[in-house]
Amino acid sequence: MQELDSHIQSVGAAPGIEHDEIGRLPRGAGAARITCIDYSTDKVSIEEIDNLQDFVEHHRPEWSHVRWISVDGLSDKSAIQILAKKYDLHPLAVEDMLQKTQRPKAEPYGGEDSDYIARLFIVTHTLQFREGRLSNEQVSIFLGHNTVLTFQASHSAVWDTIRQRIKLKGSRLRKSDASFLAYSLLDAIVDSCFPILEAFSDRAEELEALILERSQPDLLSQIHQFKRDLLLLRWVVWPMREVVSSLQRDSHECVSDATRVYLRDLYDHVVQIIDLIETYREIAGDLIETYMSSVSNRMNEIMKVLTLIGTIFIPLTFLAGVYGMNFHFFPELDQPLAYPAFWAVCVGTAVTMLFIFRRRRWL
Amino acid sequence: MQELDSHIQSVGAAPGIEHDEIGRLPRGAGAARITCIDYSTDKVSIEEIDNLQDFVEHHRPEWSHVRWISVDGLSDKSAIQILAKKYDLHPLAVEDMLQKTQRPKAEPYGGEDSDYIARLFIVTHTLQFREGRLSNEQVSIFLGHNTVLTFQASHSAVWDTIRQRIKLKGSRLRKSDASFLAYSLLDAIVDSCFPILEAFSDRAEELEALILERSQPDLLSQIHQFKRDLLLLRWVVWPMREVVSSLQRDSHECVSDATRVYLRDLYDHVVQIIDLIETYREIAGDLIETYMSSVSNRMNEIMKVLTLIGTIFIPLTFLAGVYGMNFHFFPELDQPLAYPAFWAVCVGTAVTMLFIFRRRRWL
Amino acid sequence: MQELDSHIQSVGAAPGIEHDEIGRLPRGAGAARITCIDYSTDKVSIEEIDNLQDFVEHHRPEWSHVRWISVDGLSDKSAIQILAKKYDLHPLAVEDMLQKTQRPKAEPYGGEDSDYIARLFIVTHTLQFREGRLSNEQVSIFLGHNTVLTFQASHSAVWDTIRQRIKLKGSRLRKSDASFLAYSLLDAIVDSCFPILEAFSDRAEELEALILERSQPDLLSQIHQFKRDLLLLRWVVWPMREVVSSLQRDSHECVSDATRVYLRDLYDHVVQIIDLIETYREIAGDLIETYMSSVSNRMNEIMKVLTLIGTIFIPLTFLAGVYGMNFHFFPELDQPLAYPAFWAVCVGTAVTMLFIFRRRRWL
Amino acid sequence: MQELDSHIQSVGAAPGIEHDEIGRLPRGAGAARITCIDYSTDKVSIEEIDNLQDFVEHHRPEWSHVRWISVDGLSDKSAIQILAKKYDLHPLAVEDMLQKTQRPKAEPYGGEDSDYIARLFIVTHTLQFREGRLSNEQVSIFLGHNTVLTFQASHSAVWDTIRQRIKLKGSRLRKSDASFLAYSLLDAIVDSCFPILEAFSDRAEELEALILERSQPDLLSQIHQFKRDLLLLRWVVWPMREVVSSLQRDSHECVSDATRVYLRDLYDHVVQIIDLIETYREIAGDLIETYMSSVSNRMNEIMKVLTLIGTIFIPLTFLAGVYGMNFHFFPELDQPLAYPAFWAVCVGTAVTMLFIFRRRRWL
Amino acid sequence: MQELDSHIQSVGAAPGIEHDEIGRLPRGAGAARITCIDYSTDKVSIEEIDNLQDFVEHHRPEWSHVRWISVDGLSDKSAIQILAKKYDLHPLAVEDMLQKTQRPKAEPYGGEDSDYIARLFIVTHTLQFREGRLSNEQVSIFLGHNTVLTFQASHSAVWDTIRQRIKLKGSRLRKSDASFLAYSLLDAIVDSCFPILEAFSDRAEELEALILERSQPDLLSQIHQFKRDLLLLRWVVWPMREVVSSLQRDSHECVSDATRVYLRDLYDHVVQIIDLIETYREIAGDLIETYMSSVSNRMNEIMKVLTLIGTIFIPLTFLAGVYGMNFHFFPELDQPLAYPAFWAVCVGTAVTMLFIFRRRRWL
Repeated sequence: MQELDSHIQSVGAAPGIEHDEIGRLPRGAGAARITCIDYSTDKVSIEEIDNLQDFVEHHRPEWSHVRWISVDGLSDKSAIQILAKKYDLHPLAVEDMLQKTQRPKAEPYGGEDSDYIARLFIVTHTLQFREGRLSNEQVSIFLGHNTVLTFQASHSAVWDTIRQRIKLKGSRLRKSDASFLAYSLLDAIVDSCFPILEAFSDRAEELEALILERSQPDLLSQIHQFKRDLLLLRWVVWPMREVVSSLQRDSHECVSDATRVYLRDLYDHVVQIIDLIETYREIAGDLIETYMSSVSNRMNEIMKVLTLIGTIFIPLTFLAGVYGMNFHFFPELDQPLAYPAFWAVCVGTAVTMLFIFRRRRWL
Repeated sequence: MQELDSHIQSVGAAPGIEHDEIGRLPRGAGAARITCIDYSTDKVSIEEIDNLQDFVEHHRPEWSHVRWISVDGLSDKSAIQILAKKYDLHPLAVEDMLQKTQRPKAEPYGGEDSDYIARLFIVTHTLQFREGRLSNEQVSIFLGHNTVLTFQASHSAVWDTIRQRIKLKGSRLRKSDASFLAYSLLDAIVDSCFPILEAFSDRAEELEALILERSQPDLLSQIHQFKRDLLLLRWVVWPMREVVSSLQRDSHECVSDATRVYLRDLYDHVVQIIDLIETYREIAGDLIETYMSSVSNRMNEIMKVLTLIGTIFIPLTFLAGVYGMNFHFFPELDQPLAYPAFWAVCVGTAVTMLFIFRRRRWL
Repeated sequence: MQELDSHIQSVGAAPGIEHDEIGRLPRGAGAARITCIDYSTDKVSIEEIDNLQDFVEHHRPEWSHVRWISVDGLSDKSAIQILAKKYDLHPLAVEDMLQKTQRPKAEPYGGEDSDYIARLFIVTHTLQFREGRLSNEQVSIFLGHNTVLTFQASHSAVWDTIRQRIKLKGSRLRKSDASFLAYSLLDAIVDSCFPILEAFSDRAEELEALILERSQPDLLSQIHQFKRDLLLLRWVVWPMREVVSSLQRDSHECVSDATRVYLRDLYDHVVQIIDLIETYREIAGDLIETYMSSVSNRMNEIMKVLTLIGTIFIPLTFLAGVYGMNFHFFPELDQPLAYPAFWAVCVGTAVTMLFIFRRRRWL
Repeated sequence: MQELDSHIQSVGAAPGIEHDEIGRLPRGAGAARITCIDYSTDKVSIEEIDNLQDFVEHHRPEWSHVRWISVDGLSDKSAIQILAKKYDLHPLAVEDMLQKTQRPKAEPYGGEDSDYIARLFIVTHTLQFREGRLSNEQVSIFLGHNTVLTFQASHSAVWDTIRQRIKLKGSRLRKSDASFLAYSLLDAIVDSCFPILEAFSDRAEELEALILERSQPDLLSQIHQFKRDLLLLRWVVWPMREVVSSLQRDSHECVSDATRVYLRDLYDHVVQIIDLIETYREIAGDLIETYMSSVSNRMNEIMKVLTLIGTIFIPLTFLAGVYGMNFHFFPELDQPLAYPAFWAVCVGTAVTMLFIFRRRRWL
Repeated sequence: MQELDSHIQSVGAAPGIEHDEIGRLPRGAGAARITCIDYSTDKVSIEEIDNLQDFVEHHRPEWSHVRWISVDGLSDKSAIQILAKKYDLHPLAVEDMLQKTQRPKAEPYGGEDSDYIARLFIVTHTLQFREGRLSNEQVSIFLGHNTVLTFQASHSAVWDTIRQRIKLKGSRLRKSDASFLAYSLLDAIVDSCFPILEAFSDRAEELEALILERSQPDLLSQIHQFKRDLLLLRWVVWPMREVVSSLQRDSHECVSDATRVYLRDLYDHVVQIIDLIETYREIAGDLIETYMSSVSNRMNEIMKVLTLIGTIFIPLTFLAGVYGMNFHFFPELDQPLAYPAFWAVCVGTAVTMLFIFRRRRWL
């Protein structure tokens, strides 16, 4: 239950984390890798940032149409503080971003009547198999008018193709705005669920084969593990439907109409995944049924055969007992053919019983 | 789980497939068969198109009220590219059309504020039994003002009657517009589910008969296969309700009011199918219950009869053992009638026990 | 699964049946009985119509406030054609009416913007027990301003009381309009479900008694049949809720406000029936549970008693075996009281074991 | 299934019971007790009415702010007819009131556009334990502007405290209007469910104790009876939520705003009861699980111990059989210590097996 | 079922408790501890109130922006009466506050058209483990424009951090209004559920380990207890969703817009907890399945091994019986090697059977 555990965390007493407080949080292990990608239709620049303070003091180049700052590693709290101040991130969003166990959601912060700049804050999770078990990692996306900030605990390969597409001149990504980039990031995460579902499909088939082959003692706990992985996937994908639906439905100044059409497509993918999850959950239920039935069938088979063996010998043992009696007046004992006749009766009885059992399909 | 597997596919990294990209996609095996049907109230022309490039360069004949271009086979990417360009199909729709595993849906593309011409894009699936298992095939329909384009991976017989009705002068189809053609195509697909449900009904009855007759070892997996076929059918039909409902509810410039009345009828059919699917799912659950109960009843019957046989002989064996004892002072052994008396007691005990068992309805 | 089967039918290729096509449909067996009832507050006339063509050429009498034409028997297609033309019935409604397997529904056809006269088309089903099984029959009602047409495959007694009430001067029916007649027809059908539910209640009690009495081998399939009858009833009544609710909610020119109050009452009855159906479904589930538990209890009882008998004799048989051994140095064998002592030990052991078993409540 | 049965009744053919028809209905057994309570802030009068005809011909006293006429006993149809005429009760409401098996509901009758005076007709049920089983009784409340009429089949103690509070000068009831009285009546009925739930809680605990103690043969049917009592309670309380919610939500001329605030409180109580019912239903499911598990555990225990006894003696019996063989060349038989050695082996084997069984936790 | 019991209480006959009535209620055991905290951005004062009458006669200091009066202990009815009068609490709210078993809810009382001052009345419950079982305690919050009153039966530590944050100059709490304080109180309660969920996670893992280790007799009732604790948690948290959602959605004069943003965050936490509860409920179901399967596996293992032992000896016992027969013409008895041969056959048969059993995986 490790994956589910990780969703339970001591939530900080005060709601939200003010910018000044971020720096005071305990520094975790490992460094953060911060990458800044600027691009427009004509030009692209990818820069690994070492001196963040220096970086934020300069304005972005004039030609840059969209800037994507991705932070891989949340341990360097001072870096996060600098970015939160520079990009005016809302305290509640910063808190959620640092907690790592938020349910997927999309929340608008700031805007006209607020002290903060209008930003859309999106939380979701990437999923991958680690040592045969599904594990998840929170990804936080801040979408501004021309800027996208992404935060995650470690670098994941899910967005590599997007970086490729940004480098590719003439791609739709290069021609579009920041909200299209945010959409593409979400799309990549959602699409990364399809191989996981494929793995689930293989696993279901494998489990079914194992059940029919022989009853491993821990097969039931394997099926339950399968169900829990499905629960985790569902925990991530189910709220994504609401997230994408709200992005598509509610107008927000940072999301362009052009992107909105693509969100409809993303919504379809999410619904498709949810459909498949529910199907696999049903199949998992069937597997448990098959397992239970197979175990009891196997046990019954054994008991049946053993009881049959016993049943054939019980009348014969009685017969042998009869002729072991010590009555003085016992006519059969003196017959010369009594002994062979006894064996004939024994064999005949056994064969007859086997025949009856077989005709009644008990064997 | 093959059918479900096929719904999981590596979704392309970039969303949508631009017109220029289509031609660059890998060409599949098999040729595409493209048929163009033009008709109006008075005239009809059916043409198999060999040279597509040539075809699209000409305008349709003046008299043609509705044009239906059907593409059977999605391997010839260049043909799809030519049609996509000519009819200005939206990249996202083209991608969905080529994926073959979309959930049924209806989506408007283009229109007033868009670069694209207004079209309604409808995805659905045809279903048929292949080698005893249900399999599905995606069908994509593009509905314009006077044009209907349909794409599917292979030619299916489901629309043959529609082609007949188009040829028939005076049919409502001939008198109606393109949206009525699209409706008729959907109606034919939905109505093709009824024979499948009939087959399910036969199968459920057959399974029930098999359960009561004798317990085949793989009957449970047959019932589970039945359930999975129902899941697949549900996967196709359930979203069709939303599709037809939205076509009927949301006004779209390509759907005429006359057609809308007929969509209500189609909606009823879809709901009827969903009702039946749910009923069969419930019956499948009952079948599993009956199977489980029948297996355990059969096993219990065997155990019971065997135990009864054993039970009758156990006291008798004890009695035989008693008179096999070697005590020197053993009065019965010297009685001349002891041996016949022994047999009388044995038969009497056995008959009494059988009588008791029968009276208690244990036999 | 016969009743459910009948809902699956090859739906005609072309949607709707035009008036001209009706006559060309295959003529079924059996004659149609057509009755026309005219009534107003003061006068009533009931006429069995033999020459339909003649009948439709005349106008209704001046005094007639409401005309009810009931057609019992759908085989005479020419009669249906004449009525469909005369009363301008919509092709889709005619098709649904002839299919006999429609889900209950209420659909408005025609009206201001249409070629057809405004009519409300209502489909429902009557239910009755035939040879111990529930069977259903479709009833179609066309409600116009002053006319009600009803179609069903065979005459059913469910509307006999309504005919009585029409004949009764001063009844509310005589004083009201056509929509009140339509309401009364629906009300009679819905109320005819109550005796069926009573029969279900008896059946549930009977099944429970049978379970507790003895385990008939086919009791489980009887309970499943009970569940399927409930499914059929639910299939009919569940959509009736939507039908009555929409009649009450959506204003239609043919339904008067006075009738609307009564529809609320009808709605309550439908909801009450649905409640009871769900209750019986739950009870059916309990019955299966009880059955399973009773079967396994009975089997366990048998096994337990048999095993007890065996267990008592096993040590005794061992003891008899001991004294049947042929050791030369065997002190007990020479004791004069050894044999009586052996029996004393046997009886003592058996009594002690029975006592222990009874104290542990194993017997 | 007696309680559920009573909800199924032959519903009269004609909808509604006109005032003139009431008197013609068959007179039931038992007399009706009619009580009239008039009160205002300052004054209160309670009168048992013997001559109803006389009573209704007089107007109420000038000072009377609210009049509550309660009818206990529905057998005296002429009394009901007199009241229905005097207070202009709607025929449909009268029918529902006399049926005794209506689902709880609140329906407005009459008002501006109607021939009838505006009244709110509320149906609910009181519940009480009779001979260990829950039984229900319909209560009908007619709320007018200054008048409340209540009808029930027999006098119940549930409203006694309300009569006390009316007599108490200065109570809120005395200061408030008729709708507050109606609210108080409903509140008393709803609150009377809490002791029933307490009884259910005790019963659940008692059943659990019985299950763990010993397996009574009819415990399962007791649990099912418990479930059915819960179903009955749910049948009554579930629609009450809708009733109270609609009273609170929809404005009606007879319900004052002051009362509306109190209805919100009543709604909370109803929801609380529904919550508890669902909880008890879940607990009942757990009880069945525990029962099933306890029965099979107990049976398995027995079988296990018995099989163990058998298993210990089977090898020993074999050994005794061996030394009962009549081979002429049988070295052990001549050994003087053979017999004691045999016993030693027997005891040794038995002890060893018991030791092994205990170590494997089989005993 | 103690925790659930406590929700069932005899609800007072009269709705609401008027201010004058409060003092007349029976005085419970234990004293109430009343604390008053006044604060503004600059200043804070915490005062334990001994003489409440004296306290309420004075106005709050001018600088006090928010006043929080917390009452720990509901036994001192006169204190509650003084506060109810001073702060004009609505009788229905007072009744709910004193009942201690209310479902969580948020209700506006008073306002423009009412005799009472506008207040938001919020009921919720704190949860904690006591002696290994989850127990709950009702907390009532009255939110006015500048005042927050809280009532609970005993002092709980859940709000200690909030008192700390109030003392901390510069905290957001100090800068915000009374509704932010109310939000913070709710937030602290909701966040206190996370450690409980963590404990549930541990308990689920522990139960799973216990099941796999050995089958304790009362493990099933432990799992059911686990399920009931989850039911209690759900009973508290489920309505909290509606509470927070309504606070956020419906505008109320006492809730500022600034607070509303934070309520969205609280809503997310509640939904997260509900998700986890549902997950644990599903896991509890799996645990029961595993337990049942483990018990029957263990029992089957025992039966299997015992039956195997029996089966091996049954043919051998028969053989021993054969050679114990007393036939006079019995050739084997005279063979010198007969006895050793007998043993060879016995050992051979036993080894062969063991070999067959092992190859068939029965051992």
